[in-house]
Amino acid sequence: MEKKEMLYEGKAKQLFATEVTDQLIVHFKDDATAFNGQKKGQIKEKGKINNKITNFFFKLLEAEGIKTHLIRELNQTDSLVKKVKIIPLEVVMRNLAAGSLAKRIGFTEGKLLRQPVIEFYYKDDQLGDPLINISHIELLKLAEHQELEKLIALSHKINYILSKFLKARKIDLVDFKLEFGKTASGEIILADEITPDTCRFWDSQTKEKLDKDRFRRDLGNVEAAYQEMYQRITGQKWQ
Amino acid sequence: MEKKEMLYEGKAKQLFATEVTDQLIVHFKDDATAFNGQKKGQIKEKGKINNKITNFFFKLLEAEGIKTHLIRELNQTDSLVKKVKIIPLEVVMRNLAAGSLAKRIGFTEGKLLRQPVIEFYYKDDQLGDPLINISHIELLKLAEHQELEKLIALSHKINYILSKFLKARKIDLVDFKLEFGKTASGEIILADEITPDTCRFWDSQTKEKLDKDRFRRDLGNVEAAYQEMYQRITGQKWQ
Repeated sequence: MEKKEMLYEGKAKQLFATEVTDQLIVHFKDDATAFNGQKKGQIKEKGKINNKITNFFFKLLEAEGIKTHLIRELNQTDSLVKKVKIIPLEVVMRNLAAGSLAKRIGFTEGKLLRQPVIEFYYKDDQLGDPLINISHIELLKLAEHQELEKLIALSHKINYILSKFLKARKIDLVDFKLEFGKTASGEIILADEITPDTCRFWDSQTKEKLDKDRFRRDLGNVEAAYQEMYQRITGQKWQ
Repeated sequence: MEKKEMLYEGKAKQLFATEVTDQLIVHFKDDATAFNGQKKGQIKEKGKINNKITNFFFKLLEAEGIKTHLIRELNQTDSLVKKVKIIPLEVVMRNLAAGSLAKRIGFTEGKLLRQPVIEFYYKDDQLGDPLINISHIELLKLAEHQELEKLIALSHKINYILSKFLKARKIDLVDFKLEFGKTASGEIILADEITPDTCRFWDSQTKEKLDKDRFRRDLGNVEAAYQEMYQRITGQKWQ
């Protein structure tokens, strides 16, 4: 399978057409950005690690009945995926207070939430991906009511599966962001990525951050954290 | 009915105990603030106008079956109200894009919304009254599920009644904020105020702003706008 024209370039990934109409190649980059693109940098081998972590999680979720866009890994940084129309919502699931939630509702970072919190952000770089509510989603026709119900149910199920899996590996799944897409037949499936770029992972004992917050907040050992997560998740040494 | 100790002082109102346990006196002040208290000033006779406009609207709503905290007007600036436990949510209903909604979703100010938009803000000055969603409300236990359903239904009904009433007086009800309270028996009733401080009122023809945005944005003729709204709503000349 070969890359044809580039259809889209995001902050951390590129998307290419292939010779098959409804199949695309996603390429994971080493580029890292934060604060809506204001901070830029690179994280060595992030592309490879994130490609492999995403595929690992997507296979795990598929085995639990969650449909994803993944077809197969092509090489270290590239995977073949189903073409979908991305629903312009970032679905954020939270188990512990951190980041913007901690600020918004005045909770200390790390406070355990009584129940998982779900948030929708409007995928729009120019607007800074604002938090929106169901009423805004209806107004903007970003998703139908039934689709939203599906996104919510899927996100809770994914949270349950991943939290349990990671807990056994001594990782707290603090929060994470999901994106979903619609296939030509209208089916909603999980797309995008699940990586240290899009999740907050804390060591359950030491509470050490093993995710992009190390880059965002200049905490050092960024590469080591990504490699550590690869090892905890896959059980294999990083190369 | 006499004022006893002051129980609460907000930006625009004071609340006093009375000799009756479950009855309070609300006093409307001329003080005006904006941007979460960063901008301060006074609007001449605002206290009187807002007391009278609120009572006019609350009676109108009562006649349409919406229960409010109003018992009776005591004098120009003061009214007797039922004591309630305020639900710490600002319910905002919007018919046209303006203010923070226009900014949040990138709509031009004045754009007609396809359907009314409802938003909940967490009443917390220290946090800057942030927008929150149903998931946050559940987490923080700010309202029960059934109570929320009630708030939503009441707010839509109030929007319908007020929009229709104002339209006949050549005023667009752009958006407005409501607060609700719970009586000792657990009933949810409308509290707080409905005034040019808490609503955006635009002249339907000229689109002239007849509300606190004149103060917020230094548009001049602030007092005249409040008086004009008093006249349009009550059909009576201002003093």
